[in-house]
Amino acid sequence: MSATNPVNNLQALIRCPSVTPAEGGALSVLEAMLAPLGFKVERVVARAEGTPDVENLYARIGSGGPHLMFAGHTDVVPPGNEADWSHPPFAAEISDGMLFGRGAVDMKGGIACFVAAVARHIEKHGAPEGSISFLITGDEEGPAINGTDKLLQWAAEKGEKWDACLVGEPTNPDVLGDMIKIGRRGSLSGRITVQGVQGHSAYPHLADNPIRGLLQLTHALMDEPFDHGTTNFPPSNLEVTTIDTGNPAVNVIPAKATAAFNIRFNDTWTADSLQSEIIRRLEAAAAEGSLRPGRDPVRYEIVWNERPSHVFLTRNDALIESLSLAVEKITGRRPALSTTGGTSDARFIKDYCPVVEFGLVGQTMHMVDERVSVEDLETLTNIYGSFIANWFAHARSA
Amino acid sequence: MSATNPVNNLQALIRCPSVTPAEGGALSVLEAMLAPLGFKVERVVARAEGTPDVENLYARIGSGGPHLMFAGHTDVVPPGNEADWSHPPFAAEISDGMLFGRGAVDMKGGIACFVAAVARHIEKHGAPEGSISFLITGDEEGPAINGTDKLLQWAAEKGEKWDACLVGEPTNPDVLGDMIKIGRRGSLSGRITVQGVQGHSAYPHLADNPIRGLLQLTHALMDEPFDHGTTNFPPSNLEVTTIDTGNPAVNVIPAKATAAFNIRFNDTWTADSLQSEIIRRLEAAAAEGSLRPGRDPVRYEIVWNERPSHVFLTRNDALIESLSLAVEKITGRRPALSTTGGTSDARFIKDYCPVVEFGLVGQTMHMVDERVSVEDLETLTNIYGSFIANWFAHARSA
Ligand SMILES: [Zn+2]
Ligand SMILES: [Zn+2]
Repeated sequence: MSATNPVNNLQALIRCPSVTPAEGGALSVLEAMLAPLGFKVERVVARAEGTPDVENLYARIGSGGPHLMFAGHTDVVPPGNEADWSHPPFAAEISDGMLFGRGAVDMKGGIACFVAAVARHIEKHGAPEGSISFLITGDEEGPAINGTDKLLQWAAEKGEKWDACLVGEPTNPDVLGDMIKIGRRGSLSGRITVQGVQGHSAYPHLADNPIRGLLQLTHALMDEPFDHGTTNFPPSNLEVTTIDTGNPAVNVIPAKATAAFNIRFNDTWTADSLQSEIIRRLEAAAAEGSLRPGRDPVRYEIVWNERPSHVFLTRNDALIESLSLAVEKITGRRPALSTTGGTSDARFIKDYCPVVEFGLVGQTMHMVDERVSVEDLETLTNIYGSFIANWFAHARSA
Repeated sequence: MSATNPVNNLQALIRCPSVTPAEGGALSVLEAMLAPLGFKVERVVARAEGTPDVENLYARIGSGGPHLMFAGHTDVVPPGNEADWSHPPFAAEISDGMLFGRGAVDMKGGIACFVAAVARHIEKHGAPEGSISFLITGDEEGPAINGTDKLLQWAAEKGEKWDACLVGEPTNPDVLGDMIKIGRRGSLSGRITVQGVQGHSAYPHLADNPIRGLLQLTHALMDEPFDHGTTNFPPSNLEVTTIDTGNPAVNVIPAKATAAFNIRFNDTWTADSLQSEIIRRLEAAAAEGSLRPGRDPVRYEIVWNERPSHVFLTRNDALIESLSLAVEKITGRRPALSTTGGTSDARFIKDYCPVVEFGLVGQTMHMVDERVSVEDLETLTNIYGSFIANWFAHARSA
């Protein structure tokens, strides 16, 4: 039976130039691997005004529970300047035991290994006693509007239910076996605009410099930490990512000034409670007035970016232990259970079932000469295979 | 003899559209008033790379001392939207006792009155026992590079010496007689750039947000007053006029951020000593490191704008008293001796002779419907006439 070799699987996927939002043939290649294994494969195109159409894929084998989902994406970030690559980004060439190509680790590699693990499992044991499904999007590296979020809704509406999910993103900082992600911080962004009164810098009493007020407000956001971290999360962290005035005249006090910020927050907060805390701080600082004595309260408005990413933490021992034991058995390493890093599509999945993330080593992701060792592909396939066995054994016994 | 009527003089000047740097015929009109009075008129074109050529005028009557200079400018700021004016900006129409036009108070009006005062003096007493000169530039409202500064150098090089100068800028806030300017604050501008390390806002430990450092530095400039004012000057005041980052990506920590500031400073400081104090503050704040604990010193650079305006204070009792007594005699008001407001070309003249400033009421300067009352023109002509008499009487007796 084919598809048991993760290297072959990955080469076929890399040779599809599926730069977001292009499908590039990658989902068809995946379909051609899964259908012969007995998967029912569905291709789902998602549309939203103002964004390109995106092709996604959902495939399931089995009809009963327990039901394990593997989630990921076939889209990749652009290769940048192809001349900078030592091997062409869509050629999937192997050199000195390394397989080169865009998506090698993020995350066609993860998909290739999970497909191989499932193929081997079926070859050895037949169809799983339960169900396995693939939820694969083509819009993870893009706006993520027509991807995992919509595919989950589509599947849930037709009655799909899952007991657990593994996301195959590259989670290991240095070596395969370093780290499982069991949660992610939330992300919240906003833009503050302070209104002043324009004037000449020689007559400051006739003007009101909005920069003074804006500095008060940003100081109130940055001065005191929002928290000191929790058992599973580092402290929440706010960065002011831009301050802009655009005033070219050095003798003119500007009329308004803006600042944007992004905060990565832990499970001390929900997006709602954090918005309230930020507004409380801004109101207090605005009421104090600008730095100049005797001044009125700072006049400001805040606009929140749409769709904050919610924080989540997975507390499902069966899922985490099934994966941790598989990693330890194959690599000899006990993986760290981490919540660091940026957001991922797991933030959508956690509303449907417990979710963890484990994949390849992320060092070359999004870079020129993205690559993975052939040895790591075999190791990850074995980890995934051991995880599948552990998880179904535990789920069936529970 | 003509030119004794300030209203006629001003109408002729306003009808020349001398928006900086255009001469617009204004200096020719002025030459045509002065030459018949006996003035030797010279037209001086100043040039500098990167700036438009500018026409200036120097006119003198008499050859010996004492020598009184009247200084001013015929260039005007643009009229803006001409449709917003109730009378066309270059028509010099009179309506309800008000003369309308761009430059009516800033400062063709001052020139028109001084010419009238000199014409009346000559008509009554003959040529002055001493010398009177006009130093008139066409580049006061522009970059001021090809104006008063160069004209003074040009005159000084050919041996001109002056004992005192009156600048005819509009100095009265509300009513003619309110205020004489006897000095001006200095002005110093600079731009601070803080260098950070770009990165993703989810990985702040791998980045260094320059906005944190920039806020530390600007805070150090704004937090403590530079001084509390002096006998003749209000406190020095610093305004941050712009902060810019230009980072469009809310999840990206930017690589650098800049702030520009302008400080109006009093005679506590020289431009040099103030630069030193600013650098001392910046160095201290930079050494403290950015707001994040354990961070390195803030990496910044400061670029000073060319040509700071130096602070000055005129301490010549004869000049100030001659003018104050004239104002009081004609208006019944004892004028305040002030150093408030922006810079003026007096900052160049003070290096050659004592200088004071007195002119019309400034309320409509640079605005739509700039205008002056016909009555004020007559009053100012009388003040100037009285001043000329006072000053020559004092100078000849000294
Ligand atoms: Zn990815
Ligand atoms: Zn002026």
